[in-house]
Amino acid sequence: MSRHETENTKRVVIIGGGFAGLNAAKALQKHPHLSITLVDKTNHHLFQPLLYQVATAALSPGDIAMPIREIFRGQNIEVLMATVEKIDKDDHKVILDNQQVLPFDFLIIAPGARHAYFGKDAWETYAPGLKTLKDALHIRERVLASFELAERKEQPFTEDLMSFVVIGGGPTGVEMAGAIAEIAHQSLKKNFKHIDPSHTKIYLIEGGKQLLAPYPEHLAKKAQKALEKMGVTVMLNTRVTDIKEDEVFISEGKSIKAHNIIWAAGNQAAPLLQSLQVPLDKQGRVLVQNDLTIAGYPHIFVLGDASACMGKNENYLPAIAPVATQQGRYVGKSIKNVLKGKTPKPFRYWDKGMMAAIGRYDALVLSGPLQGSGFIAWILWSFVHIYFLIGFRTKFIVFFQWALYFFKGQRNIRLILKPLEFLNKK
Amino acid sequence: MSRHETENTKRVVIIGGGFAGLNAAKALQKHPHLSITLVDKTNHHLFQPLLYQVATAALSPGDIAMPIREIFRGQNIEVLMATVEKIDKDDHKVILDNQQVLPFDFLIIAPGARHAYFGKDAWETYAPGLKTLKDALHIRERVLASFELAERKEQPFTEDLMSFVVIGGGPTGVEMAGAIAEIAHQSLKKNFKHIDPSHTKIYLIEGGKQLLAPYPEHLAKKAQKALEKMGVTVMLNTRVTDIKEDEVFISEGKSIKAHNIIWAAGNQAAPLLQSLQVPLDKQGRVLVQNDLTIAGYPHIFVLGDASACMGKNENYLPAIAPVATQQGRYVGKSIKNVLKGKTPKPFRYWDKGMMAAIGRYDALVLSGPLQGSGFIAWILWSFVHIYFLIGFRTKFIVFFQWALYFFKGQRNIRLILKPLEFLNKK
Repeated sequence: MSRHETENTKRVVIIGGGFAGLNAAKALQKHPHLSITLVDKTNHHLFQPLLYQVATAALSPGDIAMPIREIFRGQNIEVLMATVEKIDKDDHKVILDNQQVLPFDFLIIAPGARHAYFGKDAWETYAPGLKTLKDALHIRERVLASFELAERKEQPFTEDLMSFVVIGGGPTGVEMAGAIAEIAHQSLKKNFKHIDPSHTKIYLIEGGKQLLAPYPEHLAKKAQKALEKMGVTVMLNTRVTDIKEDEVFISEGKSIKAHNIIWAAGNQAAPLLQSLQVPLDKQGRVLVQNDLTIAGYPHIFVLGDASACMGKNENYLPAIAPVATQQGRYVGKSIKNVLKGKTPKPFRYWDKGMMAAIGRYDALVLSGPLQGSGFIAWILWSFVHIYFLIGFRTKFIVFFQWALYFFKGQRNIRLILKPLEFLNKK
Repeated sequence: MSRHETENTKRVVIIGGGFAGLNAAKALQKHPHLSITLVDKTNHHLFQPLLYQVATAALSPGDIAMPIREIFRGQNIEVLMATVEKIDKDDHKVILDNQQVLPFDFLIIAPGARHAYFGKDAWETYAPGLKTLKDALHIRERVLASFELAERKEQPFTEDLMSFVVIGGGPTGVEMAGAIAEIAHQSLKKNFKHIDPSHTKIYLIEGGKQLLAPYPEHLAKKAQKALEKMGVTVMLNTRVTDIKEDEVFISEGKSIKAHNIIWAAGNQAAPLLQSLQVPLDKQGRVLVQNDLTIAGYPHIFVLGDASACMGKNENYLPAIAPVATQQGRYVGKSIKNVLKGKTPKPFRYWDKGMMAAIGRYDALVLSGPLQGSGFIAWILWSFVHIYFLIGFRTKFIVFFQWALYFFKGQRNIRLILKPLEFLNKK
């Protein structure tokens, strides 16, 4: 190792390079007495709030992702691209897929969540979810290939090829449904001879009684109307009972045929957390103390989507980037305080509000007294996202890409990389 | 079909959306009496001269590719994403993979070429080539993953993981070797703790007595010296006798161990041409008449890399974008002349010269009396490429991406999308 390790040096292991892990590492990177290792399955940090834009061909993977080791270039942080196989909390060790052992004095666990199918794992084949760049590219290829196959008049699926079902009416589901509507009505306009993409059918299925559950009902209704105006059929109070190839079954024995089914309905924290042998909630998240540690293990922190952290009003904090970011910074500060012999204060989430994009020119904003939807809300949504994305990319390119997309409706990342035969099968 | 077809309407089928097919379609698109169908295996046109920049993480796939149907948005051209299975030249029919039949009055065949292994197809697994975006992403993932695995100290390959062999000293080989040297010495600097990417070994193997065969010897020598200065070991007069996993065997029983082997040594025209049942040269190209038609078939044209077209000095024209572009335009014009009852003049290639990039800040230029290498040549190379790429993308984003890359050496598209376990295997 190139750095000097003295008796005073403490080893910090960070699992996950998402918003939580990255911000913890940033808070700690210049500390002289720490030896930090960050482990991630992928080699990049992902700006997940815009992942749906990659899945719908408006942005490139490179626009919303950055190599983790480039972020920490020249810093005293070891970055490993590896999968963590096991955490031994009593022996203070993390074991990697290649059996490499990372001993730790402090452990920051932030592996995130995957989409979950409520125990019906077989559904994943027919209804892919959206968590990683690989997921996004998979969905992008399938969506685009559907129109190509329809233009070729592939039988017997021509109509199903132009039908889309999005399951789950949370922010991801709303954003995906809106973006697919845009693709059909805007981006692909005048691109085909045999099909009319504006005949595309888009269904958004939600089990609850409104879209975007955490928002007030009157705002959710506005979002619903906006989607309906864009040609999306919104189905509330509708439970999915089964998913088969190109078919979604709903209550009362009805079904919808569609070649593209997208899953945006449930999350499950990383299975790795089970190796901690501590109580988990039903989403597989670790029930943490108010300082984000595990009871009895003051040097082990669980953050971000992997963490069930009580907020105000006895609700767990939502699985969103601002929570993860603030938790990452908090844990970085906590560790520095512990090293100085101070006791850290409990974590408090500063809720700046929520936003959800509905389509181009429309969004919902809910920030304290500020509530609204429509064009102004969308401008706000755009600025907040561009601001954070540019901060993270330190590049203006994304801004230009966006300008083109938003003002001209261009979606030029519409590349299909795999052969069509392969995409048509599963 | 939406367009009006009258008795006067002639059906044109174009196979391939590369430089040749695309430019033929552009030349014909506004003709009132033509019904045009363009078939391509992929859904995008690719700016192939910069493909090595995608393989080496400087550009995104979306920067150098554009959906073909978007290029012809609103035009009277049917675009099909499909593989052509067979051409029946006597029955005037093209048969697609889904058995769809396209009858034609004029046929423009421009399916391009793939890399070829001189009959040793088994080598492809260990030494991938670079023709499509899929190829480029495959190479990018393997190159980047090698450094990740080396940092993890994967045994027993740590040294081999940081060794690269490029086979073939033509423009692609020279550009790849130069770009890998840049990655090792510039882009990855200060990114790792356990390995020093500047210790990377890069071998460029060429069977002939100089690099860049069509260039004069003194220029080729300059390119060689520039590469050597960048840390590339250039091996001339060296024949590859066998390729196995992580090992290249060369004459005299010697071998080089390397986890990354890249094939840039040979081309073979599309196998589809065999279904034409006409004489082919040893690279599988169709020997065309001076009007680019097949002898006896004045309505069937073969263009681009699929065509063996005699130039001045009794040499076949090289497989480069300017040749394909000019041939595409020429055939478009020819067909319009035939429809007017005129006899087309023979095709004449206007040779504006050749260029090859060696690395950042260095290139070779050979254009009539203008010959040179070094920084000025590189500036020229950059401007020509940016000019044509922007023309094709109608976007300035690429320019900014380039500016960042060239002036700061940033390669931010360094994303690995597949899990490491998968990449390590083959």
